[in-house]
Amino acid sequence: MKPGSPADTVAVVGPGLIGGSLAMALGPNARSLRVWARRPEVLDELRQRCPTAHPSADLAETVAGADLVILCTPVGTMPDLAGRLLPHLKPGAIVTDVGSVKAPVVSRLEPIICPVAHFVGSHPMAGGDQTGIRHSRANLFQDAACIITPTPRTHPTALARVSAPWETLGCRLFYLPPDAHDHAVALISHLPHLLAATLVQTVARTNPAALDLAGPGFRDSTRIAMGSAPMWDEILRENVDAIGDAIRALLSELDAVQTALSQGEGLAAFLEGARAARLGLAGRQNPDGPPIG
Amino acid sequence: MKPGSPADTVAVVGPGLIGGSLAMALGPNARSLRVWARRPEVLDELRQRCPTAHPSADLAETVAGADLVILCTPVGTMPDLAGRLLPHLKPGAIVTDVGSVKAPVVSRLEPIICPVAHFVGSHPMAGGDQTGIRHSRANLFQDAACIITPTPRTHPTALARVSAPWETLGCRLFYLPPDAHDHAVALISHLPHLLAATLVQTVARTNPAALDLAGPGFRDSTRIAMGSAPMWDEILRENVDAIGDAIRALLSELDAVQTALSQGEGLAAFLEGARAARLGLAGRQNPDGPPIG
Repeated sequence: MKPGSPADTVAVVGPGLIGGSLAMALGPNARSLRVWARRPEVLDELRQRCPTAHPSADLAETVAGADLVILCTPVGTMPDLAGRLLPHLKPGAIVTDVGSVKAPVVSRLEPIICPVAHFVGSHPMAGGDQTGIRHSRANLFQDAACIITPTPRTHPTALARVSAPWETLGCRLFYLPPDAHDHAVALISHLPHLLAATLVQTVARTNPAALDLAGPGFRDSTRIAMGSAPMWDEILRENVDAIGDAIRALLSELDAVQTALSQGEGLAAFLEGARAARLGLAGRQNPDGPPIG
Repeated sequence: MKPGSPADTVAVVGPGLIGGSLAMALGPNARSLRVWARRPEVLDELRQRCPTAHPSADLAETVAGADLVILCTPVGTMPDLAGRLLPHLKPGAIVTDVGSVKAPVVSRLEPIICPVAHFVGSHPMAGGDQTGIRHSRANLFQDAACIITPTPRTHPTALARVSAPWETLGCRLFYLPPDAHDHAVALISHLPHLLAATLVQTVARTNPAALDLAGPGFRDSTRIAMGSAPMWDEILRENVDAIGDAIRALLSELDAVQTALSQGEGLAAFLEGARAARLGLAGRQNPDGPPIG
């Protein structure tokens, strides 16, 4: 039985942007879809967006008997949540999460869950600066990378069963150990977020009037700085070492850029290299619109 | 007579993304719109996009008798171009450019043009990574900032006459001396471009496989790195000092970020400050879609 298939009972815990989108996307595929949320207004929104789901504010009721449990709450809440849902888990169930850091989450949750069920971390690279169930949509995961983070303790069957729903949703699957995930994501998600925020603060503090002049380039490159500050603070603090490595790598490249600028040579080649790498990314997935002229 | 009004003859020199969009937007408003391009395929594309324009590969014919001449070629080509069109300029005509750096352009072009006509620099903050007339559109300038860069030599009437067409196109007008423009634009355009390229190169050289995992945040924040490398190389090299100041300001902020990360405090406030500043930008112009939840 593949989780996400019509024969499964799926529980989504915490319907924000990711959890809400998961509910909308998995609803038509699951035998039974239950969704747990704390706040009544979120449960109401969920009823509208996902009529096939069974919303509940009772965690025990939501996870009892579920074949697949997907934790979509902030990473800091997960260990406590795992302890609370453990007594109600069906033996052999699959538990996964969608947190943006994996080594801290996996190292805390695996020992809690594994005596009873299976835990394997997931991280769909989807979402944006707009969070909350109001922005959720069924096609959020289409063509997105989803990184699954097995450990030496992960059973091959559990790995296959956690992969299946992401595949159903149209994700491109990757498998990395939790620590390798955290280093890769420091480079492609955490560092970009810090840089966007740092760029905005640099302008705001150096020459705030210049913000009035900003064009589409500045808007694109700083859009992620509009993401939830508490959420990103938590994510970034959980991945300090890998982010430190990423910042040092960036500073080394930036040093080369400064040298090229001051010496008046090498900059065009640097820019062309970056352009080619970024175009390769566009070609791989092509959500960037028409070809570049 | 206001340039851009139906009583004017306007000449656009070099129809790339900006010049082509200007031709499309000004065509219906000008008494006569002439456009000069070197390459036959650009002239053909122009005929299709802008049927009211008079395309020509003859620079003298294009500018002769024009009330307003708008130079839209790469900044490095402008002094030579100005020298070539000078003998054909109508006395008292207004010449402007759309270059991304202003002090070098204004200091070179003003002495060439001013014995015969008026020169005032312009810089519409519009465009993107997709260049060339194929991407031009009549509404490119709607709501964009346009920075006009007068000098002590600029006649008030010339300033008013260079402003009028940008206002007609829906731009928000700002007036800055050329050097102040270059410092502001170093922060909101040149630094973001360098950072986007540096971020792509950091990932490409540190962990190229991580590029496969990139989500929409990385795509947004590096989109401008797909811009033309020779064009940006030229722009950046013309503004080395101001960009150096901008990089140092960024490094100072980044240093504060690293301290906050390692000490485990202050990061949330930093991110919240950046978020508020970026949201203020969205509210000012609101091209970022629905409100942020």
